[in-house]
Parts: sequence; structure tokens; C-alpha cells
Amino acid sequence: MTGTLAEHDDVYRQQGFGASSGIGQRPALLIVDFVESFADPTMFGGGNIPEAIAATARLLAFARSRHWPVAMTRIVFADDGADANIFTRKVPGLLALTETNPHGAIVPELTPIAGELVLRKRLPSAFAGTDLTAWLAGRGVDTVIVTGATTSGCVRASVVDAMGNGFITVVARDCVGDRALAPHEANLFDMQQKYADLMTSDEIVATVSARFAQAKE
Amino acid sequence: MTGTLAEHDDVYRQQGFGASSGIGQRPALLIVDFVESFADPTMFGGGNIPEAIAATARLLAFARSRHWPVAMTRIVFADDGADANIFTRKVPGLLALTETNPHGAIVPELTPIAGELVLRKRLPSAFAGTDLTAWLAGRGVDTVIVTGATTSGCVRASVVDAMGNGFITVVARDCVGDRALAPHEANLFDMQQKYADLMTSDEIVATVSARFAQAKE
Amino acid sequence: MTGTLAEHDDVYRQQGFGASSGIGQRPALLIVDFVESFADPTMFGGGNIPEAIAATARLLAFARSRHWPVAMTRIVFADDGADANIFTRKVPGLLALTETNPHGAIVPELTPIAGELVLRKRLPSAFAGTDLTAWLAGRGVDTVIVTGATTSGCVRASVVDAMGNGFITVVARDCVGDRALAPHEANLFDMQQKYADLMTSDEIVATVSARFAQAKE
Amino acid sequence: MTGTLAEHDDVYRQQGFGASSGIGQRPALLIVDFVESFADPTMFGGGNIPEAIAATARLLAFARSRHWPVAMTRIVFADDGADANIFTRKVPGLLALTETNPHGAIVPELTPIAGELVLRKRLPSAFAGTDLTAWLAGRGVDTVIVTGATTSGCVRASVVDAMGNGFITVVARDCVGDRALAPHEANLFDMQQKYADLMTSDEIVATVSARFAQAKE
Repeated sequence: MTGTLAEHDDVYRQQGFGASSGIGQRPALLIVDFVESFADPTMFGGGNIPEAIAATARLLAFARSRHWPVAMTRIVFADDGADANIFTRKVPGLLALTETNPHGAIVPELTPIAGELVLRKRLPSAFAGTDLTAWLAGRGVDTVIVTGATTSGCVRASVVDAMGNGFITVVARDCVGDRALAPHEANLFDMQQKYADLMTSDEIVATVSARFAQAKE
Repeated sequence: MTGTLAEHDDVYRQQGFGASSGIGQRPALLIVDFVESFADPTMFGGGNIPEAIAATARLLAFARSRHWPVAMTRIVFADDGADANIFTRKVPGLLALTETNPHGAIVPELTPIAGELVLRKRLPSAFAGTDLTAWLAGRGVDTVIVTGATTSGCVRASVVDAMGNGFITVVARDCVGDRALAPHEANLFDMQQKYADLMTSDEIVATVSARFAQAKE
Repeated sequence: MTGTLAEHDDVYRQQGFGASSGIGQRPALLIVDFVESFADPTMFGGGNIPEAIAATARLLAFARSRHWPVAMTRIVFADDGADANIFTRKVPGLLALTETNPHGAIVPELTPIAGELVLRKRLPSAFAGTDLTAWLAGRGVDTVIVTGATTSGCVRASVVDAMGNGFITVVARDCVGDRALAPHEANLFDMQQKYADLMTSDEIVATVSARFAQAKE
Repeated sequence: MTGTLAEHDDVYRQQGFGASSGIGQRPALLIVDFVESFADPTMFGGGNIPEAIAATARLLAFARSRHWPVAMTRIVFADDGADANIFTRKVPGLLALTETNPHGAIVPELTPIAGELVLRKRLPSAFAGTDLTAWLAGRGVDTVIVTGATTSGCVRASVVDAMGNGFITVVARDCVGDRALAPHEANLFDMQQKYADLMTSDEIVATVSARFAQAKE
């Protein structure tokens, strides 16, 4: 890779990228593809994904305590492959993630509870070919906090669409993970410059808690 | 940025990413945001964008000779900013690209001719908030050849959606450009692994011409 | 037409259709295709459209006094017909509605003011091939009040999509019009049973005003 | 209902509606919501739905003999109702159609075979919140033949979207059914005027067979 982070950061700053979009009043938590196969380095996992799952479990507990809408995604293809698509031409192994394949199950640390949406999807973005926008709009959500795997794939695609569909978007940076660190970091850079704010889960919790304390005074 | 290209390439290969999706029988050419402001390094341009425009002009001539459907995009916001969105919160300068602002005009090397679609858009992807999918499906297109700027922004978002909407997607790698080279290359890597084949414009012309010659024999 | 309204109303009631979806806290006003050509009986207009425009002008004044987001649509095709679609195969006359054709202008009673969104569209629904969902979600809207023409065409399609995209939907029944009354009424029936509540503009004004009075006490 | 069919037919003809969009070269068959609960008059069924299912079974046999892509939809909501939406506010009984509820199963006459797509949906249109457009585009489809229930609900919404997404659309008029005949006929009128051609299943079979015979000569 040519160029350094410092160099391209300068160009983006001079051109007016990277303004903050903040956090709104009604956040939802989106957990992208934290399923067994993306937690397993011998399948689609590796890198910093285990740490991201652990951090997401803590953020999920907070989200539940605040009664935020919570949505999770799983990649699921039909047993007979009738729903194969261009994505599976590029990544044929995804077709193995059928409805009952245990590798496609949400990891136990994040098991959904009643009222949480579990979306099946066949494309990178949590919004592509799903009714997630309608679900969020129907619950009055103005901000989507994004966690999941992988940063350079389904997380990035979901962030672009969350923003594009009208939701303030925050990437919980310690709650997103990838099988390899260079693409992870390159995509955090792109998202921060153009689509979303990056915050640690601790910063998200602190910001929201401070508001809540203020509102109670 | 930690990790090297060679290292993460290995991980992706082992996990079965990066298969080829080929080129179909009925390609269309998509030219993303090659407008004055993205050709100008003092606005949103710079880097290798001038070379990408020159290469795209040659590919466009070929596309016209083959009667491919051609679509171009421009970013256009309302004079009164009534259509500001989350994208313009992150990149406020985009709001200056109003209908009649000359900085928002297609560069002269690529001036559209009758029958070519010029789409206004307000989001990164050429497909987001537009009827481009319908336009392509209605013209029997099975493959979208993508050119434009920037590789790490509107090109990447358009490639994810072209693929997700059912079209074989090819990134004409010398016809996409970016203001900074590190994000350009990082995004070429991601697209090649997961969404699209990368081919030079010469390879695209040669592949299609060879088929045509064969069909005539 | 076989069967009577009373007869099919019974069937729908027995099967549990037609529950009320109410009005939310943050309404927006959507005005569909009230342009010159749909006000003119020699073009695409006629029927009860003039009265619907007059009623919409009154509702628009109320919406402005309450600072609701207001969006209007116009059908606009390219001068060279490059964007012809399946809709224009069925209704070829629509292709005449180009950007500068005065028949495609919003009627003077409803001239938009600064901050109101004017969307170009090429399909029946105000949401199809546009970024209207993102615009509404980005402004915190939970309810879309629909007016416009024609009830059996672009209004119906917009109502199905407003509801489907997660917004409580209300058809302002005296503010929607059609070139022929039988389709107008048949579509009001369908929308009321399945997608939206029907309210007169007076009822909408009274309901919202009563809430506001209560909130001030 | 005021006005007669003859009267409004005249108005539509004078205004240039109702042109034919034909049938393309690569049709797909779409079967909307022919599940047990829509075949049962004590649930959401009744009217002419049984005859429409029988006619669809014959058309499906033809589609299979021609190797057309075949897609079927089922309405499916989560066991815990986490995915309730505005549609279920208007028609609360739909929430009973959970994954394993036998009332939500495809009717036995139309049991899908390997390679046929079975889509879960939560909204009227087969395209809303699904990846059906991508599936059709990815299979080179240019024409969607629509069958299913109900004519005035999910069939109509699917037809508007099939057309809007760029596919020539044909309503197989004896293969669509509704719980009440007046809305059935009113919606056939609207679809024929604006979105799709109406053909009987016999006409579809004859048209396609004639082409095939011609191509073999």
C-alpha cells in the first residue's frame, strides 16, 4: 500500500471530510453477522473478532438496560442453493450457511431475547434485501450504533446503508472486528471520513448516560 | 496501518474469498461522479483521478461502439438545501453542488450523448435513492462495468449495490480514481475479494472483442 | 363490477382487516403529482382533482403553520427519453413531462417554499427510485399524511410504500383525487382496509390541534 | 360506487392509458402468498381463490417444463412478534403466520421443488424488504408473470414493484384471486391501465409455445 495514513488524512481534512454527525435521541443497536462461522478463524473469522464480540456483549447489556431496539443479522442460504447470488460467486463458501447449520447461529454471548429482531440476509449490508429500514423507522429510531463483523465487509456495507437510509450512524470501534487488521483499519478510516462517527463502546455508554443523568435533574 | 498486503491476502485466500465472477453477455458502463469538482484537487479531486478520467474516455468510446447502455451520475443538492442528509453532515461541502453549479457538471471528456442516462444522486451509491436497478434490468443488462470517483467512496458503494442488485460487477481498475492512494488500493483489495472482478480497461476491451470475433466466425 | 361495497365490507370485517393505525407524533405532508398535467382534464386530470387541490392547499397551510416536513413529487423524464421505463410502455404520454415542460410544474396553489422537498420521479410511488424514505427518517417523521393524484395510481402506490417503509400512513381523503370516480373509491376502500387510515383534512387538523392544546395546558 | 366501468374506461382510453407492454424473452413465474390461510375462507381466503390456485398449478407445470425461474412468497412473522410493522397494525391477524404455523405453508398443489425460490415476506409486495429484484436480475429475467392472492392486496403491490423494478409484467388473470370480487375486478382494471398486461394462462402458454415452435423451424 502506497501513501501513509498521515498523508491521506491531511488531504481529507483539507477537502472538508470527517465532520461529526453526533448521536441522536433514539438509538438502536445493530449487530452484524456475529455468528459462529465469523467467530471461527478456520472459517470466516480470526483477527480481532473475539475481542469485538466480548465488547459487543457489554454494549448489548447496556442497550437492553436502556430498552433500545436491537437487531441482529445472520447470513442464511437455502438448503438447495436456490438463492445463490453474485456475492456467492465471489465467496462460494457462504452457501454452506443454511438455516440449520450450527455455524450460522448467533454466538452464545449474544443470544437474542424476546423482542429483538433476527434478520436473515444474503448480501453484505443488513439493509440489502431486508426490511430493516422499515423496522427502525417504525420504532422511531434516529441513530444506529453498528457492531459486528467484518469491518471491511458487512459492517462497512451496513454503515453506508444506515447513513444512506437517513439514520445517524455510529461505529462502535471496539465492537467491530475483521479477519485481517489492515482492511479493518482502512475501512474505519473511510467510514469516519464519510459516513459515521467512530466511538468506543465506553464513549457511547458515557455519552448516553450523561444525557440521561442530565434529563433526570 | 498494521499487517501487510501479502499477509491479509493469505488469510482471504485460505478462507475462500476472491473467486472470479466473470463478465456476462450484456454489459453496461457506469461512470460514477466524474464531475468537475471531483477532477479538481482543490475541491474533492486529486490523486490518480485525471488518469482515470482519460482511461474512462477511451472505454466510453468502446462502449458506444458496442451500443452498451451507459449511465453517468452527478451529485446534486437543492439550492435551498432542503434535501440535506446524513452524508452532508459528514461532508458539508457537498451541499454546494447544486443543479447549476458548474463544479457539478460532467467533465467535458465524458459529455453524455443522446440515450445515455444522467442520474442525479445525493448518496454515495449510484443505486441509492435512484432507479438505476430498474433502468439496467429494463435494458437486459447482466453485467455492470464500473468506473469513476472515488474508489474508496462512491465507486465502492456503487459496486456493493451493483453486485447486491444481481449484476455481475467488474471494476475497470485504471478507470477508477481517488484523492489519496492508500484508500484507493485498500478498496480495490476489498472489492476484488468480495464483490467484483478487477480488470484493466484493455483487458475488458480484449475480452469482449475476442468474444465478438468468435461469434462472427 | 360484481358484488356490492356492503358485501365485500362484511368479508373484510370478518377477516379482521381495517384496524386503525392512528396518527403519530411527528407527521409529514406528502403531496403526490399535483402538477399542471394532472389538474387538466384534457391531459391526465379530471374527476374530483380540482377539489382535491383546493383542500390540499388548506392542509398545506396548516402543515406549514405546524412546521411539518413537506415533500412534493413531480413526474419528470429526460428530454431524450433515455430514462423511459416499463411504466412509459403502458402510459407513453408520460414521456412528454420533461424538466422544462410547463405541464409538469407544481400547480400554483401549492408552490413549494424554501425547505420543502421537491422530488422528481419516474414511477408511480413517491418512494420508488427516490430517497424519500431517508429524507423522512432523517427528519424524525413517524407519520405520512398523503395527498395528491391519482388515488388509483401514484397515491395508492405511495401509500403502500409509506406504510411498508415503516411510517404510519393517513390518506387525507378529500385531498386525493382521480380522473374517474369508481377507481377513486375502490382504491380508498383497499387502502383503508389494509394500509392506512382515511381521514378528512378537517379531522386531521382537529386531531392534531386538540393534542397541541392539551400539551400546552 | 359511482360511475360505471364503461365510463371510466373511456376516460382512460382518451388519456392514452392501457398500452400493451407485451411479453419478453426470459419470463419468470411469481406466485404470491398461495398459502393455506389464503386458501381458507374462514381465515384470509374465499372468493375465487380456489380456482386461481388450480389455474396456477397448470401454469406452474408449464413454467417448469420451460425451465423458467419460479419464485413463491409466504408471509412469515417471528414467534415473538419482534417484527410487527405498520401492516400488522392494520391487519393484526397476520402476526399469527409464524414460521411453523401450518396456515402459513404453501398449498400442496404448488409445493416448490429444488431450485425454486421461497421468499419470506412481511409486507404486501413480494419485492418489499426482499432480494427478489436481485434474484430475477441475476437470472436474466426480463418478464415477470404474476399469480397469487390477493388481487387487491399483495398481487397488486407486487405488480407495481415488478414493473417499477424494470420487468415487463403480466398478470395471469385466471391465476389471481381475491376474497371479494369487486376489489378483484377494480384492481385488474387499474393494473391493466397502468402497470401490466392481463392475459389468461392459456394465452400465456399459447404465446410462448408459438414463439418456441417458430424458433425451432
